[in-house]
Amino acid sequence: MSFNLVLVNPQIPNNTGAIGRLCVNAGATLHLIKPIGFDIDEKAVRRAGLDYWDKLDLKVWENIEEFFEHNDITCNAYFATTKTDRPYFDADFKEGDYIFFGSETKGIPEDILNKYKSQNITIPMTKEGRSLNLAISTGIVLYDAIRQNYSTFEEA
Amino acid sequence: MSFNLVLVNPQIPNNTGAIGRLCVNAGATLHLIKPIGFDIDEKAVRRAGLDYWDKLDLKVWENIEEFFEHNDITCNAYFATTKTDRPYFDADFKEGDYIFFGSETKGIPEDILNKYKSQNITIPMTKEGRSLNLAISTGIVLYDAIRQNYSTFEEA
Repeated sequence: MSFNLVLVNPQIPNNTGAIGRLCVNAGATLHLIKPIGFDIDEKAVRRAGLDYWDKLDLKVWENIEEFFEHNDITCNAYFATTKTDRPYFDADFKEGDYIFFGSETKGIPEDILNKYKSQNITIPMTKEGRSLNLAISTGIVLYDAIRQNYSTFEEA
Repeated sequence: MSFNLVLVNPQIPNNTGAIGRLCVNAGATLHLIKPIGFDIDEKAVRRAGLDYWDKLDLKVWENIEEFFEHNDITCNAYFATTKTDRPYFDADFKEGDYIFFGSETKGIPEDILNKYKSQNITIPMTKEGRSLNLAISTGIVLYDAIRQNYSTFEEA
């Protein structure tokens, strides 16, 4: 088992498609938490995911409560946000960890960020910048988790 | 100064736009080497780059020869390809390094890869995968370079 990437309320099909492809390449499970801003079966998702979508270990949850009922994330979850100073590479990622990203427009809901404050992480940016594309952000963090656990990574 | 990200013949405007935004956020210079599969001024590029495009340190080169005439990359360049086993995080990135990525369809031209074989790097992938989205790939490698040189990174 590798990592769990959790998208809370994603809005842009191209991003989710590209993230699906990323997860196949990274051996990660993708969790999508509804509401979602598009139909998961629409063409744009599959197009961005190329022919990887069918190989994806995908779990879709009706809402955040349902996700939390079925996934125990007590000590092994990280929450990406611009509202912390802790760089993602300071996190000590372990196989099976859950890595959360919020929607392109709103990020992760504030109450969740606050509940798990010590597990908030961020991608450092220059003062000229303000945000990164969601798909790029997930790649940066997920692959640092892989780098940290590379000895167990099952490559081609 | 930070890093130099070099796109050789990119084809998809959305990717280059998102990579432009990435470079602003990472404090990197973006080099685009023609021929390019789209008009650099077209809307799709700016849309994917959001309002970051004007803040981007962008250099456009007519061809690879012109790039090499004006940039000395002898000992400080890395070339991303699926044709090597050396993970990108084994590279010892230094400020000012040039990180090359090829087009979405063809990758970096073979003669360049061969000329700089010891500087070829790759993103490890599972056997189910075959390739990653170009924008995600640039983010993964560029941010590992930043991680390795974080003490000199000028944050917000």
